[in-house]
Amino acid sequence: MSARPSWFSIPRGSHFSLANIPFGIISTASSTTPRVAVAIGDHALDLAAFAAGNGFAALSTIHPHQAVFSQPSLNAFAALGRPLHSAVRSYIQAVFAADTPCPEALKTNSALQKQSLLPLTDVQCHLPFKIGDYTDFFVGLNHAYNCGLIFRGPANALQPNYKHLPVGYHGRASSVVVSGTPIRRPHGQILTNPSAENKVPTFSQCKKLDFELELGAFVCRANNRGEPVPIGKAEESLFGLVLLNDWSARDVQAWEYVPLGPFNAKNFGTTISPWVVLTDALEPFKVKAIENDAQVLPYLREKDEKSVYDIQLQVDLKTSAQSGNTSTITKTNGRHLLWSFPQMLTHHTITGCNLQPGDLLGSGTISGTSLSECGSLLEQSENGKTTVHISGGEERTFLQDGDEVTLTGVCGSDEEALVGFGQCTGKIEPALTLDF
Amino acid sequence: MSARPSWFSIPRGSHFSLANIPFGIISTASSTTPRVAVAIGDHALDLAAFAAGNGFAALSTIHPHQAVFSQPSLNAFAALGRPLHSAVRSYIQAVFAADTPCPEALKTNSALQKQSLLPLTDVQCHLPFKIGDYTDFFVGLNHAYNCGLIFRGPANALQPNYKHLPVGYHGRASSVVVSGTPIRRPHGQILTNPSAENKVPTFSQCKKLDFELELGAFVCRANNRGEPVPIGKAEESLFGLVLLNDWSARDVQAWEYVPLGPFNAKNFGTTISPWVVLTDALEPFKVKAIENDAQVLPYLREKDEKSVYDIQLQVDLKTSAQSGNTSTITKTNGRHLLWSFPQMLTHHTITGCNLQPGDLLGSGTISGTSLSECGSLLEQSENGKTTVHISGGEERTFLQDGDEVTLTGVCGSDEEALVGFGQCTGKIEPALTLDF
Ligand SMILES: [Ca+2]
Ligand SMILES: [Ca+2]
Ligand SMILES: [Mg+2]
Ligand SMILES: [Mg+2]
Ligand code: NI
Repeated sequence: MSARPSWFSIPRGSHFSLANIPFGIISTASSTTPRVAVAIGDHALDLAAFAAGNGFAALSTIHPHQAVFSQPSLNAFAALGRPLHSAVRSYIQAVFAADTPCPEALKTNSALQKQSLLPLTDVQCHLPFKIGDYTDFFVGLNHAYNCGLIFRGPANALQPNYKHLPVGYHGRASSVVVSGTPIRRPHGQILTNPSAENKVPTFSQCKKLDFELELGAFVCRANNRGEPVPIGKAEESLFGLVLLNDWSARDVQAWEYVPLGPFNAKNFGTTISPWVVLTDALEPFKVKAIENDAQVLPYLREKDEKSVYDIQLQVDLKTSAQSGNTSTITKTNGRHLLWSFPQMLTHHTITGCNLQPGDLLGSGTISGTSLSECGSLLEQSENGKTTVHISGGEERTFLQDGDEVTLTGVCGSDEEALVGFGQCTGKIEPALTLDF
Repeated sequence: MSARPSWFSIPRGSHFSLANIPFGIISTASSTTPRVAVAIGDHALDLAAFAAGNGFAALSTIHPHQAVFSQPSLNAFAALGRPLHSAVRSYIQAVFAADTPCPEALKTNSALQKQSLLPLTDVQCHLPFKIGDYTDFFVGLNHAYNCGLIFRGPANALQPNYKHLPVGYHGRASSVVVSGTPIRRPHGQILTNPSAENKVPTFSQCKKLDFELELGAFVCRANNRGEPVPIGKAEESLFGLVLLNDWSARDVQAWEYVPLGPFNAKNFGTTISPWVVLTDALEPFKVKAIENDAQVLPYLREKDEKSVYDIQLQVDLKTSAQSGNTSTITKTNGRHLLWSFPQMLTHHTITGCNLQPGDLLGSGTISGTSLSECGSLLEQSENGKTTVHISGGEERTFLQDGDEVTLTGVCGSDEEALVGFGQCTGKIEPALTLDF
């Protein structure tokens, strides 16, 4: 499929081609109220301004709902449901097409172009959703196996339930932040000598600070408490995807996580990319998930074999060295999941949990099978036993102060029709000095 | 201390004496907009109506903030901070005192009495807070030991971390409901034969549905992400307490919870009592927590030895039998905790997690040392091995359809000055018939 030409200048290689049209929340220095926008090439189209300037004249289905574009989050837009998300995306694609059927909407309306098309460099991105609840799954099978190996040994690396259900746990919604937000190195309880007979923890700065490369999915549809979402309906509840970095304090985690799971090790910050790529835009990139050799219960069986996405994922680490050493430390793919987001969503509701628009589901860390395909330093350094080489002769076991971690993700190879996520980035600040 | 006399008729034995003044959210048939109220005897004082009728004339500090009483949640009132909660509670106590210094506020104002004093039987209670995040701790030591015994045996009953940190996990905020909301029996994955070599789950109705008797605490103060709350400041962040029933599907839990903790087993519903008892009102009932024989790290050490509450707790089970058999199955006390709420709150923030007004912290199940003091059927029936006797010859291992569980909690013994929580109740509805 060749790229649809546009009258608007979209740079080759942009993640935000006409094939994408991701949604986010922006503000600018001259207009500080956060509102809805889409990204297109090097620009944001401010949908509040676009709607106010009558840009949606030719899309009557959105007319009763245009106030959603002036909201400070995507929650209200998402709650309109997938048919309307599709209609708005298709309409915007048509507005930007070289052969647009509605040139007066923007192509020939230079006043509205000036008001609504903002260079991304002038735009501040905000958290795209007000997140009610955040759940982190653990369905990257290779990561789960690698972690199990490190923490429990090969005999129990994968627990007996792993292939029967999408393992997940409730995360912390309040500390989900948007790309670019600094992350402070935490303090916590750490067991310095795990093999000692007498297990007494120390209070210390985290010495094993790590990232986790994940995908996040936003929910757009509420289900009633007590009423599970059938697998055949689960896609209707999924608005779109972002990149997600589940920052993790591995030394805190090792001491705290038995028996109730990770808590302080994960709740100090989770970073997501600002532009939410609609599930519609990802549809052409669907591929089969990792083959599950267990008998999957009927409520989790999908009709379509293709239910995860071929997303080229990458992690770059930039150190604080004067020379600004940057290395790509991970290359992997969104296909390395045992369960799809529809399966995670259905399982989440199977006992009756009610989801709400704006809820966030994390996939769990995504790793391929080789070390350089692993989505965390825990795996790449084998929990600190080996070092990861960075350009300029630097090396890492875990993150150092000043390190900046950037996740990127992109679908497709046609440089004029990429469907990308942009970046999800965060820099490590030194720990506070605590006087207690 | 003898009870302060009131000009208003407060029944002897009421949980809502003048010594209490708990806050909640109410509506009525004639005025369906939810708003703030306090409970006093058999009545609610509608604070939106009271404020509108100039009832707060003699409390100038609240004047700039009276709009908080017209909100549909306590979040805005809570965010005003503990000095203002204290001022409002003391003022309302003064308004109701026989020797009130401001009789014109209510005592001699029969028009405002009529507008603002509503019989509790005419009032619908709503969830008191919009809950951003809900965290469930596990600091009832006897419960933790009993569960550990059942699931892991005596050698690992308490994990090595248990006495060093308040163990907790993130819960599900969206499914927290107010007392009286029915709870539907869930379906889920269950391992019918846990001792089988080949562990293959079935999909089934929950057969081990249970309650958990807990206390919940609401947060009133935000801390910045990255900045832990010192233990000496933690009390300032605690608004007040409720009773909390953490409904639990034990068979689902046993299969799913390793390694990331409980998920579907807990996220289908958590019930709380509607009237939030201010920490101020509980102050006279402070007692020492369970002695911790471990060396507690400095960041968790409290100045005051007394940091938990002497709350007489009780669980009643009413069956669906025609005769309506009701038995008190648990009697225990809020003092059976290893860690206090200030310790839980400080630990929650130690790696930098940001709390927000309206966040809910659960204590974990509270159990004494004997079977009849245990706050769950899991413990009382030893995971189904023995039966719990109910009046009328009925018995239970776990909950049956139609069973109604009621938690009550009360401080003090002076029948004219009780500080009580009222009830936290929920009835089990039969499972849905699922066609998948
Ligand atoms: Ca994770
Ligand atoms: Ca619990
Ligand atoms: Mg996180
Ligand atoms: Mg619960
Ligand atoms: Ni007395």
